[in-house]
Amino acid sequence: MPASPPLAPDPHAPDDLAAFKHAFRRHAAGVAVITTLAPAGAPVGFTATSLASLSAVPPLATFNMARSASSWAAIAVADRVVIHMMGSHNRAVAEKLAGPHADRFVGEHWQPGPYGLPVLTGVTSWMVGRIVERVSVHNNAVVVVQIEGGGMGTDDEALLYHERTYRVPGVAI
Amino acid sequence: MPASPPLAPDPHAPDDLAAFKHAFRRHAAGVAVITTLAPAGAPVGFTATSLASLSAVPPLATFNMARSASSWAAIAVADRVVIHMMGSHNRAVAEKLAGPHADRFVGEHWQPGPYGLPVLTGVTSWMVGRIVERVSVHNNAVVVVQIEGGGMGTDDEALLYHERTYRVPGVAI
Repeated sequence: MPASPPLAPDPHAPDDLAAFKHAFRRHAAGVAVITTLAPAGAPVGFTATSLASLSAVPPLATFNMARSASSWAAIAVADRVVIHMMGSHNRAVAEKLAGPHADRFVGEHWQPGPYGLPVLTGVTSWMVGRIVERVSVHNNAVVVVQIEGGGMGTDDEALLYHERTYRVPGVAI
Repeated sequence: MPASPPLAPDPHAPDDLAAFKHAFRRHAAGVAVITTLAPAGAPVGFTATSLASLSAVPPLATFNMARSASSWAAIAVADRVVIHMMGSHNRAVAEKLAGPHADRFVGEHWQPGPYGLPVLTGVTSWMVGRIVERVSVHNNAVVVVQIEGGGMGTDDEALLYHERTYRVPGVAI
């Protein structure tokens, strides 16, 4: 049986930021890519580890982002987004969509989909949905999306991000 | 190179709920447990796969829940919660906190921590924080927590939930 965790107040306990960083280092997250169109029509998108289910009926999902992010100006006014579930074969695309903004849609890894929105090719699954809430908290936003449809992709292992490394799920325990 | 995913409108494309279910089946999630105290002082908590980081400065995290969940009455009025990152050694506790409400705090797997809040023993990391937003969307809620402190636990592999199975992260790719 592992020992009990230390309880605060404890002189050795981490402060707020240290506790946060330590905890999220111990948390594994699935990798998604969110895309949309800027008002002038340019494709915009980013890699997210914050995608979560909110409800199934109606189908709602959430993601979080900084309002200082390069994609925020487009997300702030977009009607709809595409949410892609990334698989192990999509690691290079996940890295590209987390890299320099100007390079993210340079290449053959996407095509226009519903409403002209950019859809990444070869992902395990994707959903198109309407943004129904944008909640600002400090300089960040929680975005709530109601899913309207989507498409199935290739059967592939889910892509994870954990300890600053892309991984795949391991054995069942 | 995997084939392109089908694009809607497509007679074979799933509808909104089918798209949602298919996509989230392809998504892997880290496992957390959220606890608090009910107004009368009873420990309350649940296992969540929706925990996400919102920002580091200030340290903010989000989780999602149904307002029909047994823990909602307490979360709806609580000042603070404890968020636990679950590791591979905590699988039984994660299942217990996802099981029958009356059984969740029966046992030696927790102790009172800061503010008297229930802290699970043997987790990889935990954080205590103040609820700063509760956003209702249909019969669900997005809860935003500002982290104030926490504790480090045992060094253990992160616990994942994927394809209805508890897992640990696999190899780096």
